[in-house]
Formats: sequence, C-alpha cells, structure tokens
Amino acid sequence: MQTQVGIIGGGPSGLCLARLLSQAGIKSIILERQDREYVEARIRAGILEQGMADLMRKAGVGARMDKEGLLHDGIVLTFDGREERINMAALTGGQQVMVYGQTELTKDLYDAVLKDDNITVIFEARDVHPVGYMDGKPKLEFHKDGKQTIIDCDYIAGCDGYHGASRASVPRDKLKEYERIYPFGWLGLLSDTPPVHEELIYANHKRGFALCSMRSHTRSRYYIQVGLDEKVEDWSDERFWDEIRRRLPEHIAEKMVTGPSIEKSIAPLRSFVTEPMRFGNMFLVGDAAHIVPPTGAKGLNLAASDMYYLSTALIAYYQEGRTDLLDRYSETALRRVWAAVRFSWWFTSIMHKFNEDPIEHKIQLAELDYLMSSTAGKTTIAENYVGLPFDPTFK
Amino acid sequence: MQTQVGIIGGGPSGLCLARLLSQAGIKSIILERQDREYVEARIRAGILEQGMADLMRKAGVGARMDKEGLLHDGIVLTFDGREERINMAALTGGQQVMVYGQTELTKDLYDAVLKDDNITVIFEARDVHPVGYMDGKPKLEFHKDGKQTIIDCDYIAGCDGYHGASRASVPRDKLKEYERIYPFGWLGLLSDTPPVHEELIYANHKRGFALCSMRSHTRSRYYIQVGLDEKVEDWSDERFWDEIRRRLPEHIAEKMVTGPSIEKSIAPLRSFVTEPMRFGNMFLVGDAAHIVPPTGAKGLNLAASDMYYLSTALIAYYQEGRTDLLDRYSETALRRVWAAVRFSWWFTSIMHKFNEDPIEHKIQLAELDYLMSSTAGKTTIAENYVGLPFDPTFK
Repeated sequence: MQTQVGIIGGGPSGLCLARLLSQAGIKSIILERQDREYVEARIRAGILEQGMADLMRKAGVGARMDKEGLLHDGIVLTFDGREERINMAALTGGQQVMVYGQTELTKDLYDAVLKDDNITVIFEARDVHPVGYMDGKPKLEFHKDGKQTIIDCDYIAGCDGYHGASRASVPRDKLKEYERIYPFGWLGLLSDTPPVHEELIYANHKRGFALCSMRSHTRSRYYIQVGLDEKVEDWSDERFWDEIRRRLPEHIAEKMVTGPSIEKSIAPLRSFVTEPMRFGNMFLVGDAAHIVPPTGAKGLNLAASDMYYLSTALIAYYQEGRTDLLDRYSETALRRVWAAVRFSWWFTSIMHKFNEDPIEHKIQLAELDYLMSSTAGKTTIAENYVGLPFDPTFK
Repeated sequence: MQTQVGIIGGGPSGLCLARLLSQAGIKSIILERQDREYVEARIRAGILEQGMADLMRKAGVGARMDKEGLLHDGIVLTFDGREERINMAALTGGQQVMVYGQTELTKDLYDAVLKDDNITVIFEARDVHPVGYMDGKPKLEFHKDGKQTIIDCDYIAGCDGYHGASRASVPRDKLKEYERIYPFGWLGLLSDTPPVHEELIYANHKRGFALCSMRSHTRSRYYIQVGLDEKVEDWSDERFWDEIRRRLPEHIAEKMVTGPSIEKSIAPLRSFVTEPMRFGNMFLVGDAAHIVPPTGAKGLNLAASDMYYLSTALIAYYQEGRTDLLDRYSETALRRVWAAVRFSWWFTSIMHKFNEDPIEHKIQLAELDYLMSSTAGKTTIAENYVGLPFDPTFK
C-alpha cells in the first residue's frame, strides 16, 4: 500500500488531522488498533477551546458541534466557602469555550472521514511499527487479520497516545522525556442528571478537589480527588454524591440532583512531555508526545495546536514544496505544549490537596484570594483557560 | 514606670510605630535588648514599597530617604539566556519602589525618636516579659543593669522579631503557627562597587538563583542561592564573583565590577505566620508574627501594613474611644500578610532550584515565558512587587 501521510491512531487527533489534510487534497491512511465502536465509546474530555472548535469547522465537521455544543463564557471557582466567577469572555475580548463531549466529536469525525475519498481507515490494525523514518523511507508495518501489510508513505503522524507505537519506536538516546506523577487521582462519575450549575465549578476544599462538569443540559460529569490507593468498587454512587456535596459550598451542594451513575472510574494524573516532537519524517501529535493532568481541560485542546501546526506544515510542503514549516514544527508546538503543561500543573497545584501541612492550604487560599481581587490575576486564568493563541508567524 | 503603649523591640517597626503614635500625641516606651550601635549596624532589607516610604514620611522621618533613596520603575528577570524587564510603574499606574538601606532608615528613625518627647527608648533592656495582657492589665517586666523594672501600659506592641519575647509569651494553645523551611539559603555579599545594573536583576539559572541588588550608586548587594550545608568560610570573594557571573546572561556578567567584600553571610529562607496577631491587649507587628523568604523584598514592607493598621487603630482608640479597629487589626493585617507570604513563596519557587528533576526547571521557564508574553501576567508580578494596597476600609 502507499499514501502520502500515514497516521497512527484513529482518535480525535488522527481523524481531525486527516480531514485537515484532505481539505487540501492530501491523502492519508489511518491505522486504528480497535474497532470503530470501541473508539467512539471512549469517554474523555468535554471542553473545547475556540482553537479546537475552529479546527473542527475547518475540517468540515463542525455542524453538529455548533448546533448541540454549549458555549460557556465563564467558570466558577469555590474555596473557603466563597463562590467566585471568572468571566472569561469579558477578560479575553470575547473568547469562549464549548462543552461538547469527545464521544460526540469522535462520531462526527468518523462520519466525515469514512466518506472521504482522500482518507482510508484501517480498523483493528495490530502490531503497528513505524520504520525507516530516520532514513527518508518511512513505512508503517502492521498486522490485520493475521496478515502483515506495509504502507509506504512520505510522512508519518504519530497520533497514537501515550502508550502508542510511534514514540516507543524512537531510540531512547534520540529523545528526552519529562514526567511528573501526582499523588492522587480523579474519581469520575457520569450520570443523566441536570448539571448542578450551568457553568463548570472547580472546588478547592480541605477534603480535596472537586469538579462539577457536564456533557449536556441533561448529562452531568462530576469528579472528586481521591487517593491513589482508592478502588472504584469502594465508591457506591451514594458515597460519591455525599463526598462531592461536602466539598462544595452549602448553597451549591443543596441544589445538586443525584442519580444512578452511567460510568464511574478512577484516573491517575500525570504531566509528561517528550522532546523533540519530530524524528526524521515522523511527527508526534497530542498525547503521543505530551500528557497533562485534566484540571483545566487542556488534553485534546493541546493536541489541537499540534494538528494545526502539522497540517499547516504538510500543506506548505505538498502545495509549495516548502520544508521550513516542517523544520519548525517541533519547536513551535513545544512552546505551546509547555505553556499548557505549566498551566495544567499550576491549576492542579492550587486546587488539590497535596499533603496535611496546613500552610499549603493557607497559601492556596491566599493565592485564590489575590487572584480574585485582581483583574490581572483573573485575566491570567481566563487567557490560559480559553487557550493561548497559536503562533501567528507559523504560516 | 508607666506609659500608653509599651513597645518591645527597637528595630524599624518599633521605632516607626512609636513615631506614628507620637504624631498623634500618644506616648510610648521602647525596650531594645541591644545598644544603639548594634541595632543600627544590622544589615537587612533595602527595598521600600511606596506604602512603607509613605509611612516614613508620615512619621516625619522621610527627608533623607527622599534625598538619597533611589527610585526604581522596574526590575529585570533573567532566565534561559533572556533578559526581560518588568516596567512596574507602567503596569501599576505609576507605582515605584525605593532603594534605601535598612541601616540608613534605622539611623533616621533613631535620630527622630531620641529627640521625641513622647517616646522613651531603653537600650540593653534584658529578660523582657510581657504579662497581664490577657487580663486587661498589660505590663512589661525587664532587667536593666541588673535591676528589675516594670512598666504599666494600656497596650503592648510586640515588634521584637521572630525570636522575640512577645510571641514566645503566648500560651501554645492560644495561637496557630504555619511554617515552611526552604532547602537552600542565600549567600550575600556587600561591596563598594558600582551595581552591575541600575535596576535589580533576579536570575533564574540551572545552577541556582542569583540576585543583583544595591544600596546606592556605589554600593552593591549581591546574593546567590547556596545549599544549607555551605559555610561562608568556603566562599572566597573570588569564588563568589565567579559563581554569580555564571548565573547571569553573558552580556550582563561581563559588565560586573568586582571588589573586596565588606560583609558576607549566609541566611536561611523561611515562610512563617502566626495566627492571630492579637492577644488581649498585646499586638504582634512584623517579624514577630510573620517571616517571608527575601525574594521579593517583602519583609520590612509587610511590617509596614501592620504598623499602619495598628497605629490607625490605636489613634482611633485614644482620640475617639473606638475599639472597633483594634478588634479588626488581626484579621485585616493577616489578609495582607498571607498575600505577601504567597507572593514571596511563589517568587522564590519560580526563581530557585529545588531539586535535580529537569521537569521542574522546564515548568519554571514555561511560566516565565508565559508571564513575559502576557500583559496580565507581568501585571500580577508588578502589582505584588510594588506592594498590594492597605485595606481602604480600615479607618
């Protein structure tokens, strides 16, 4: 087989990248380890920055998102019994975020991709190996139905997540990895109940962090910080509801509508960055190169700038023969990656309980008190939350 | 003996408080453990916020400061080979800080205090004990020349620093202490050399933090972060100059004029807060209640808001019989204390090397890169550095 861009991974990054390339007439093949149903059922992020929403529109898949997605102008922080709103739109010249579940977004992308003549998707592609990318002869080797296949391509995009084959194929001495593991996880609960509040609530509390989020007007997504040794089995729905209510100011807790969980799981929190993000003719995109803790909802939105830079660079190559943007990809992408890694780490640090030392909580409250008292302080949160701009010189 | 306000400690806080009270006709006695020469020779802070400079003027001791002090509009941060200026005045509506050594300030205060009929200073007052302040009968017991003396007073102000007698006299169950010790110290060097730059330079470097400060156009004060196990004897002047130059961008390092040290010492870094700051008729002021690491130069400036609030409250009591401000002192003072404790902790955290984990330095650089790219980000540094306002409702 042969194509222009071989894409490893059929999650939102790989799919959206393929569509962005296709809009410019560039052909790609996507290798996905699972079947479509499995991929579409993954429950992940639900908050899209304007940059990510704009990419969806550019990829020609924004129609349902724009119809069903909920635009949010602000977020709420609670701490020390206080409830403070950050009016993001007012502080950033009108920028908003959109609530639209990754499940829905992935469905929309597959609907478009599977009808797209420039894109071939191969599901259940096993044992994927990117090879030859350091020697100018990139190939993707994989097994499908027990048979080995090889795809010759010009470039490889590794969109296969933290555990994927792309980064794993790079010799250890060719990259540098940075990692921080947090001493707690998030216990998440999804339920068909109306959200307790129309905007997201991030709660700092002595008992630990809590987040009230949603997927729609009738579906809520709640999280609480738990110890790494906690097990989902030990958390009945009732225990979860009791605990999250304790971590919210009383006037919010008493409005909470509870109901049976649709899904409940514990996820660890990690910061991780690989440098560089280019290896010869292979480029890493999204979680394959970087992971952030979910506080601040930066995961998918950080993949967005990678997709934007890589699609721009590949289009410049195929349409104008230019390689300068491909050469700038890694450095440009990494600058925004580190900015989001920093913000996600900071937002995690200020909202979670790390230890029992009481000065820690006092300093958190002092920082939140200062930030809420200062327009500049609130603006630093707002401009990071709505998403830092893509580099305007990258074109 | 008898007075209205008994002040423990003849450092700048006690002296300035006494002068502020005297301007309103309130009498005080200051007990100082050392002699005048010793107190005046203490080398401490050198950066005055506008709020502290204004208090000096209000205390009638601002003339020499206004003549000899150097007004600064900005500070410089260096990191990752970059040199970035924060134009504090432009970002805060014209606020500045003043470089004026604590040694000079203490001389000016003593010159005024010793001529002030409302103030008595007792040097070499030993074994000071504040008593009776929880029972409405505050007294200061002390020894002078081997003889015990007792001063009856209405109120006691504990301006006697971290190791002083005032906080130490409070039963442990009546207060809560918060503390954080940092895993490094500052090695400081004073020299009669022209400063390397007209404004302060705060340097983040892989080898550790450095600070280029000054006392005047001809006297420099430099600091480098060192391990807690380092000894001054191991640091020749030459070794110090070599090390600080390595931590600065080359174009700055090569301009540095070196010379013999006048003083060289290592100081540990600590964050410390006591709550509350009032115990019956005794009030804690400055270092007696709170310590911050010197990054950001908040120590004396934080004592300034305590002096301001306490003098305002005592004047309201003596002139109008009001006790409402005395009742609000602790809570009001602590809010600004925690804000400065937070800022000093943050500025320390972002500029120092805490460990060998490379992600730490990358996150520091990402935060500095973000802050310098954002007007809001730079403003958060500027408005904290020049000093958060005193509570305007406290009157």
